[in-house]
Amino acid sequence: MDDVQNQQDKRGIKVQQTGVKNVCLPFLIEDGGKVQQVQALIKFTVSLSQNLRGTHMSRLLEILTDWTIKPLSMSAVMSILTEAIDKLNTDATKIKIAFKYFVEREAPVSKKKSLLDLDCFFEAEIINEQKKFILGVSVPLTTLCPCSKEISNFGAHNQRSVCSIKIQFADTKSTISINELAKIIEMQASSQMYGLLKREDEKFVTEAAYKNPKFVEDILRDVVLAVRKIDNVKYFSVECENFESIHNHNAFAFHEEFN
Amino acid sequence: MDDVQNQQDKRGIKVQQTGVKNVCLPFLIEDGGKVQQVQALIKFTVSLSQNLRGTHMSRLLEILTDWTIKPLSMSAVMSILTEAIDKLNTDATKIKIAFKYFVEREAPVSKKKSLLDLDCFFEAEIINEQKKFILGVSVPLTTLCPCSKEISNFGAHNQRSVCSIKIQFADTKSTISINELAKIIEMQASSQMYGLLKREDEKFVTEAAYKNPKFVEDILRDVVLAVRKIDNVKYFSVECENFESIHNHNAFAFHEEFN
Amino acid sequence: MDDVQNQQDKRGIKVQQTGVKNVCLPFLIEDGGKVQQVQALIKFTVSLSQNLRGTHMSRLLEILTDWTIKPLSMSAVMSILTEAIDKLNTDATKIKIAFKYFVEREAPVSKKKSLLDLDCFFEAEIINEQKKFILGVSVPLTTLCPCSKEISNFGAHNQRSVCSIKIQFADTKSTISINELAKIIEMQASSQMYGLLKREDEKFVTEAAYKNPKFVEDILRDVVLAVRKIDNVKYFSVECENFESIHNHNAFAFHEEFN
Amino acid sequence: MDDVQNQQDKRGIKVQQTGVKNVCLPFLIEDGGKVQQVQALIKFTVSLSQNLRGTHMSRLLEILTDWTIKPLSMSAVMSILTEAIDKLNTDATKIKIAFKYFVEREAPVSKKKSLLDLDCFFEAEIINEQKKFILGVSVPLTTLCPCSKEISNFGAHNQRSVCSIKIQFADTKSTISINELAKIIEMQASSQMYGLLKREDEKFVTEAAYKNPKFVEDILRDVVLAVRKIDNVKYFSVECENFESIHNHNAFAFHEEFN
Repeated sequence: MDDVQNQQDKRGIKVQQTGVKNVCLPFLIEDGGKVQQVQALIKFTVSLSQNLRGTHMSRLLEILTDWTIKPLSMSAVMSILTEAIDKLNTDATKIKIAFKYFVEREAPVSKKKSLLDLDCFFEAEIINEQKKFILGVSVPLTTLCPCSKEISNFGAHNQRSVCSIKIQFADTKSTISINELAKIIEMQASSQMYGLLKREDEKFVTEAAYKNPKFVEDILRDVVLAVRKIDNVKYFSVECENFESIHNHNAFAFHEEFN
Repeated sequence: MDDVQNQQDKRGIKVQQTGVKNVCLPFLIEDGGKVQQVQALIKFTVSLSQNLRGTHMSRLLEILTDWTIKPLSMSAVMSILTEAIDKLNTDATKIKIAFKYFVEREAPVSKKKSLLDLDCFFEAEIINEQKKFILGVSVPLTTLCPCSKEISNFGAHNQRSVCSIKIQFADTKSTISINELAKIIEMQASSQMYGLLKREDEKFVTEAAYKNPKFVEDILRDVVLAVRKIDNVKYFSVECENFESIHNHNAFAFHEEFN
Repeated sequence: MDDVQNQQDKRGIKVQQTGVKNVCLPFLIEDGGKVQQVQALIKFTVSLSQNLRGTHMSRLLEILTDWTIKPLSMSAVMSILTEAIDKLNTDATKIKIAFKYFVEREAPVSKKKSLLDLDCFFEAEIINEQKKFILGVSVPLTTLCPCSKEISNFGAHNQRSVCSIKIQFADTKSTISINELAKIIEMQASSQMYGLLKREDEKFVTEAAYKNPKFVEDILRDVVLAVRKIDNVKYFSVECENFESIHNHNAFAFHEEFN
Repeated sequence: MDDVQNQQDKRGIKVQQTGVKNVCLPFLIEDGGKVQQVQALIKFTVSLSQNLRGTHMSRLLEILTDWTIKPLSMSAVMSILTEAIDKLNTDATKIKIAFKYFVEREAPVSKKKSLLDLDCFFEAEIINEQKKFILGVSVPLTTLCPCSKEISNFGAHNQRSVCSIKIQFADTKSTISINELAKIIEMQASSQMYGLLKREDEKFVTEAAYKNPKFVEDILRDVVLAVRKIDNVKYFSVECENFESIHNHNAFAFHEEFN
């Protein structure tokens, strides 16, 4: 059976990335000393030599399928990439694994426990032996508008917001768990968010937010200050988006730093 | 060239709906005495006799393409359906045309004008000569929680909400414009929503919402009472969804009435 | 602390559904003798007496949170609903739990195993002691166009399709597993779909699809015939959607039957 | 009324981007000598001095609202940005305007005309007087797999694909119309795509695709070669995604070049 992918290509173009996207698989994320099964959405690509017509995409699926039963820590993501380099005979490979990760939160007064779902991703690449890993975590928050509070005789508009951080460390030994990073972000909100609140908790979060008004820029800056305190960070970006309660569009802020 | 769709089918099943979905076309909506160009997403189906293997879907596209240059009022939707009955030799046809419709709103104090985008749809069917038309309109709103206001020493959580109404009239002469229906819904909110607000407007909407706290059930009931006052309504449903500022899930309520 | 939800309501409207939507939680689906952890998206509502102003939504979250650690079979869904009836003092409650469910498939020639993700849901209600349960399963398929094959000298357009079935049984003892139902649907396709195919498998599925051309109406009718053979079905609907390779819109067919 | 946004900020962080996102407005795109009304989704941000607490987001909405009634060519996007620099007293601003743009296509044999919807965007920035403009166009295509054709005795799997290009010119005088760029991409497909095809057209596109099999990498390379021929291009990227008819995931390729 002819291997059409292996045909010689004359166009002289090395393809920077080719592979599979929107692969949905169950993965076992190992983080902070625990293993959590997640529903992962994966994009996984390799570079393709200018001499070859196509890559062998089924090999990427074979690698991924093997990883559905092995715990996947942040450092293990590099093992997936080195497998791709070996099995696809390539010098560059990238992967993005996006998933919802559940963390437990305790309501502030009733102490009732519930789960909060965080949108996370692991993004990694090896290009000519240079390795890179980025952790992405998005955290839902409450924000309350300082302007609205200041100018109004009573009340202040507030809304659901989401703050997303991407973080890359300077060396492969430095790391932070998803839950730790989420907590750092939650502490910068007007109030943190909970799945389950009883009445006494609702009073608490309402008053907490009112006492702690923050613009989208305030959250952004406070998260920037907090992330700067994490050791050995090489790069990070923060974006914050408020689903404004008084508008049908969102307020948005973004900032990134390279160390 | 053989007409495979016209082959005899032996399975004995009359297909209730077959046609096209996710057709994206520019349409000219005529409503309230004005014509507005919209980006329409269309689902358009016919029934298929048990004797025939397939329908001729290209004819549905021909009909729709013709309508991209003619004003489409609510009553004209029936003309699309009668064309389908003629050209596809069928006894039943359905269409759903979904689009964003822009209405102008004036900020409450500064009187600055801006546009608000409403998700709307026209849904119509003819089944054995029985005609049915439903107008759907979704309106973004501000809601402020009565419980949070009552139990807290200051502040109250509030959020973006959306209230969606479907309405069917008892006869083809009765109707209501999208803008009129939207205004009826907006009046039931804690505060209505605007694209553009200056500081004096922000004070106004913040205080208005605080003075007018409403649960998702309150909005629902008040919209039900308001819709009951519209003449000649045969059926309506209302649903209201609050994108809670203190939770990562939504509060939701639904009600429908047949007259 | 005042219970605002418990205030008397004078509007005289019994709210048909009020509750929570877009709740995201990990659930343990028990089906076909196995337990699989899934990422569930939940809508959970109760009716509200005309005398009361609001429902106690936190109780719905308490019920759901408890179920994140208990296996949830189709029959256990009714237990969630009876808890809601007890704890929220209501006479009607509905739930929809949507999730991706993974099934293993073996490539037709190489016998390589991979996972296929199916969009599924459990939908249940109790209204005035009347119980209803619906299972929904969506299966990705390959379809190849009979008209294109017939009229062309070589080749035939084909595409990814999805066939979605909803099924309600006549009694609570009758049931079918997600995997069984998925297999019944897959057998009606031009070719079934796989996560991982080696070259010999690709030859197999290409030729299988070419030998087995089917319109969207063909798939629909063949699935209808297959579902009619399942015992004790009270209601079912089938919809099939083809993401046409020659158009930027989809072909679509729908059929439902009440026994 | 206190201007809270104008408060002094002590955190010492210049915010790189702050503004509005998901603003939905009707815009008048002027391109290729024609004006087409579109439904635009807009993200519009400015940088914020380290001395100030917040930006004045309503001014961004004022600017955008003014542009709903003026034709917006690619070059006019810079005028929006210079307005932002003036009115918000900033040294950096970015905008992304995403919209569906309709182009007319003629079926290959019947010559029937229909519309094809292209996802497009204008992305522009001014940072410290440095201007940048990127045009993005996504075109739906048919692709047919060379491997499947080669190894199978008959047939070949094919599917809907989308090819997306981003292009930046070296000077502000060089440009290309959306329709021209779309046609360049369409010519690299196994077959181009149409809204409306009669039977004779379906035979044509089926045979055309079968005679012209292309991997996702083939489309990518052929588009790269075609874009290299456009004059004065400073940067471009191409990505191609195939919604595989034999898998429930997509094949994907990406390439970018800086001149």
